[in-house]
Amino acid sequence: MGAGLAGLAAAAELTRRGLQVVVLEARGRVGGRVASREIAGARFDVGGQWIGPTQHRMHRLVSAHGLDLFPQWHAGTKILDCQGKLSRYEGDIPSLPLVHLLELQRSLWRLDALTKRARTTPDPAWDRSTLADWSASHVRSARVRGLLTAAVRVIFGMEPAELSLLRFLGYSASADGFLSLAEIVGGAQQDKVVQGTHALAEAMAAGLEVHCGAAVRAIDQSGDSVHLHTDAGVWQADRVIVALPPHLTGRIAWTPALPQLREQLVQRWPMGATVKVFAVYERPFWRAAGLSGEVVHTGGPLTVTFDATTAERVPALLSFVVGDEARRWGQRAEGERRRAVLESLVRWFGPEAGRPIGFGEEDWAREPWSGGCPTSSPVTGSLACMPALREPVGRVHWAGTETARRWTGFMEGAVESGERAAAEVAARFGGPTRPSASSAIGSA
Amino acid sequence: MGAGLAGLAAAAELTRRGLQVVVLEARGRVGGRVASREIAGARFDVGGQWIGPTQHRMHRLVSAHGLDLFPQWHAGTKILDCQGKLSRYEGDIPSLPLVHLLELQRSLWRLDALTKRARTTPDPAWDRSTLADWSASHVRSARVRGLLTAAVRVIFGMEPAELSLLRFLGYSASADGFLSLAEIVGGAQQDKVVQGTHALAEAMAAGLEVHCGAAVRAIDQSGDSVHLHTDAGVWQADRVIVALPPHLTGRIAWTPALPQLREQLVQRWPMGATVKVFAVYERPFWRAAGLSGEVVHTGGPLTVTFDATTAERVPALLSFVVGDEARRWGQRAEGERRRAVLESLVRWFGPEAGRPIGFGEEDWAREPWSGGCPTSSPVTGSLACMPALREPVGRVHWAGTETARRWTGFMEGAVESGERAAAEVAARFGGPTRPSASSAIGSA
Repeated sequence: MGAGLAGLAAAAELTRRGLQVVVLEARGRVGGRVASREIAGARFDVGGQWIGPTQHRMHRLVSAHGLDLFPQWHAGTKILDCQGKLSRYEGDIPSLPLVHLLELQRSLWRLDALTKRARTTPDPAWDRSTLADWSASHVRSARVRGLLTAAVRVIFGMEPAELSLLRFLGYSASADGFLSLAEIVGGAQQDKVVQGTHALAEAMAAGLEVHCGAAVRAIDQSGDSVHLHTDAGVWQADRVIVALPPHLTGRIAWTPALPQLREQLVQRWPMGATVKVFAVYERPFWRAAGLSGEVVHTGGPLTVTFDATTAERVPALLSFVVGDEARRWGQRAEGERRRAVLESLVRWFGPEAGRPIGFGEEDWAREPWSGGCPTSSPVTGSLACMPALREPVGRVHWAGTETARRWTGFMEGAVESGERAAAEVAARFGGPTRPSASSAIGSA
Repeated sequence: MGAGLAGLAAAAELTRRGLQVVVLEARGRVGGRVASREIAGARFDVGGQWIGPTQHRMHRLVSAHGLDLFPQWHAGTKILDCQGKLSRYEGDIPSLPLVHLLELQRSLWRLDALTKRARTTPDPAWDRSTLADWSASHVRSARVRGLLTAAVRVIFGMEPAELSLLRFLGYSASADGFLSLAEIVGGAQQDKVVQGTHALAEAMAAGLEVHCGAAVRAIDQSGDSVHLHTDAGVWQADRVIVALPPHLTGRIAWTPALPQLREQLVQRWPMGATVKVFAVYERPFWRAAGLSGEVVHTGGPLTVTFDATTAERVPALLSFVVGDEARRWGQRAEGERRRAVLESLVRWFGPEAGRPIGFGEEDWAREPWSGGCPTSSPVTGSLACMPALREPVGRVHWAGTETARRWTGFMEGAVESGERAAAEVAARFGGPTRPSASSAIGSA
């Protein structure tokens, strides 16, 4: 179940192979962690939005569905708000004193070398250490640590103390390295979908049998087929693909109970916390001032900010509240949250930033069908549980970006995982020639 | 909900204060992680079983319900199976070369000093480091590390890489220090209940309105009272105490959704993994050979073994399969598991150990209403989520041993937490004089 990109990709692939597929979705919409919202009359991607140059499946899907890409705006001067000091810089090299720049470069080289090792011979000892510990013992400058922490927070929605070194390096390795995760041009933030990523999810869902509002509460495979008990009735299937983040798969009532290794695994994959905040303006005044709109901030509540002007040229800034700041965000009153955001934007872009014509937040930790964003990560010491990540349980197969081998955590990984799970299911049916076989797919 | 010791203690306390209470329990029995099973005609505690001398609430309950204690057997020579080397020792000091004994002592002193600091001024930096990292950098001898690891595995059901230093020290501080967690005499393994701990749970449940088979699937507090949707119908209450381990509270469908901090918290409290294995014999041959039955083993699959002879003198040995070994345990065939256990017991106690008249295992990670044992622990980097641990959500209050301040993780902590949550609820009703007010309690 699940009509996120993983579930939709799996359903499309099974349909292509001639199998009968039903997609069951808990929410009232498709897309999972891909969603859109109208703010001041324009559509914004409040969930997954960027596509990188090596995310080939996403490129293929976008063009197959007649959608278009446009580049993330990055022209102009960038702002660094580091340990209370505001500075500006051009290009990719932050405005730090030379000695700190050298240390930053040395840290990135070190991480790069470790990431290369993670591709071939990962060290099991990395599973027992956190990225925060690594950083504390390998990076001397607090500024450089602050910069690395800011990048990590936005990429994972987590603090460095929450990530094992193994997870961090494995995630970087599944992408094109740590820098590719952080960069715009050539990196994971290069392009956006003109029509919005949610339009892609809707296009993928068109032609599929998708049932929204059908949260799967229980899966019973004690008989010869699988019974799925949902808020919208009971379905029966020969095979099921569960396309959910691991922790949500543990919230289903399973008959029989999940195998021990899987049960322990799903308790050990918490979601990051991310709030996306959009401020829409009458004009892109920061561009007029020669600024790109990009800010990296080592403090809180906003960690990074980007130009989020739409393809239809509605000017906007997008800021990320992430990690511990995001967890506490919902405790603050709405007006206070708005004030805190605008105060930061005014500090960086001047008084005009304080007068948006539209303002919208998306707090993913408030969404029970995601529990956070952008992705979930295994905790320290969970390496022994990993064999259960993709291992089918009876007639149930697992998809979701957390199960991807390449670009895990991204929309690209979601699609890869859906296609891989579909291939597993198709193989059980002996190829593409048994259209009577049925599958149910769930995603979130 | 939940008729484990926390839920039962809460219900008893509310009843005593004149409130009307219903206890909803998912399983077909009360007790939660306290359970008993018949093996070779005798009753064994397959869940929580030991009571330490400073666990005053448990002492009070045992005597209030007319039950009795008897001491854990510990007379005789003990066995140490360390890094492949078998040796015997008397008293509490393991048979290690002097240099290793000195290092063990130094490590324990260090941990003791840190535990004392944890009681007054815990260091937030402890949240970012694992116990495995601490051990790797502070304990030179592999044998001593092996011994500490064995103790940690049994105490938490987890590997040192899974525990933050903060959790380890906080847990030790909530008990009487690390040694009290590991020791028999004067420690957490001192006494057992003659009639079995499950008899205590049953005695506590007598006189309460307990509904078994009433798994709470959804809690709706969008109206003026709380509606609990269970497998056995819908209940309505003014206040609810949820007496479950944190991760299970996340598996309930909440209306409205849980606050963000709580949602993130419940994803960050995985359960340990523990299998208790009992071998029942015709005679206590190890005692005849001068052995206490106690074995500490730094390898697998059995980590520690104890004499488990019942108060009625049915001779038995109890072994623990814990941590990573426990997670993989269920993948092995039953016969293979039995063979592996008996091979170890024969290695330690001679050929007679290979001929039990009864054999029984309890694999708690296979139980969806616990998801593991003995307790769950927050992961690294989760300190920021902690304020949500006991903070009520609307009309819902939290109990369960994980929420206890003293002896957290133990039956004692469960009772403390239930009494604390009951006091919270009673305070909302303005004292003990409003018998019309109703509460539902769930435990697992």
